[in-house]
Amino acid sequence: MTPRALYFDDLQLGDKFVSERQRVTAEDIKRFAAEFDPQPFHLDEATARDTIFAGLAASGWHTAAVTMRLLVTSGLPLANGIIGVGGSLEWKAPTRPGDELHVESEVVELTPSHSKPDRGMAVIRATTLNDRGQAVQGLMAKLLVLRRPRPDA
Amino acid sequence: MTPRALYFDDLQLGDKFVSERQRVTAEDIKRFAAEFDPQPFHLDEATARDTIFAGLAASGWHTAAVTMRLLVTSGLPLANGIIGVGGSLEWKAPTRPGDELHVESEVVELTPSHSKPDRGMAVIRATTLNDRGQAVQGLMAKLLVLRRPRPDA
Repeated sequence: MTPRALYFDDLQLGDKFVSERQRVTAEDIKRFAAEFDPQPFHLDEATARDTIFAGLAASGWHTAAVTMRLLVTSGLPLANGIIGVGGSLEWKAPTRPGDELHVESEVVELTPSHSKPDRGMAVIRATTLNDRGQAVQGLMAKLLVLRRPRPDA
Repeated sequence: MTPRALYFDDLQLGDKFVSERQRVTAEDIKRFAAEFDPQPFHLDEATARDTIFAGLAASGWHTAAVTMRLLVTSGLPLANGIIGVGGSLEWKAPTRPGDELHVESEVVELTPSHSKPDRGMAVIRATTLNDRGQAVQGLMAKLLVLRRPRPDA
């Protein structure tokens, strides 16, 4: 990845970025679930064994939140931050205790705004992978990205 | 909403559900952001004032996570829990400090599985609203829902 802070003008279709890695522990999984997704398969190893997940699994929203952290801290160096308008998500496999996640992203759509000349819309395909090379989440994120400020503006 | 635990067989197109309410404080917003979305507009009131959000705003992923909590604890009484396969999200307005959120849901698609007769796929349109009646998030969630177990199975 490039450490540069990128504006809309700097992005090109096909640009790729790779984030750093983050490990998700059983304790992380249970703490997130207790607050936001208190279901047996996210809270307790023994109970999770007899569910559809056949073992403790992170909430999909936890995987999404860790993905966001990885994009913000290393995976997508946008000058004005990562401002999502929406997007679509697919959970392909559960995040398991001990998994080390990273995010691989690609710019797949760039649309300058006609009404607001200081910005554009970028669609980023961000795939979250575990350390076995397995995709756990696919995200198509629609982001608001500011244009490089003009010296005379 | 009904307190009954619902199986795929119990759902009908157009069925509606309303969750309880949950308040999101400035402290909640900053704590979630520090862990998952450390950007200035989610972390500090003073810094947020000069950003595109013009004030402290919750991470969209925080709004999504609170939405999930509301669905799990009161908003969508599915017998086998809420198991998301994916979906699409739209953040319509930021969640602000002190906002009290609730979720209104509707069953918009029901597809029995042909290959796995014990389950079906339901699409739920879940709108998260603040206490001013404003929609902050729209979610179309694709859920795996189990069928009612047969006595002879």
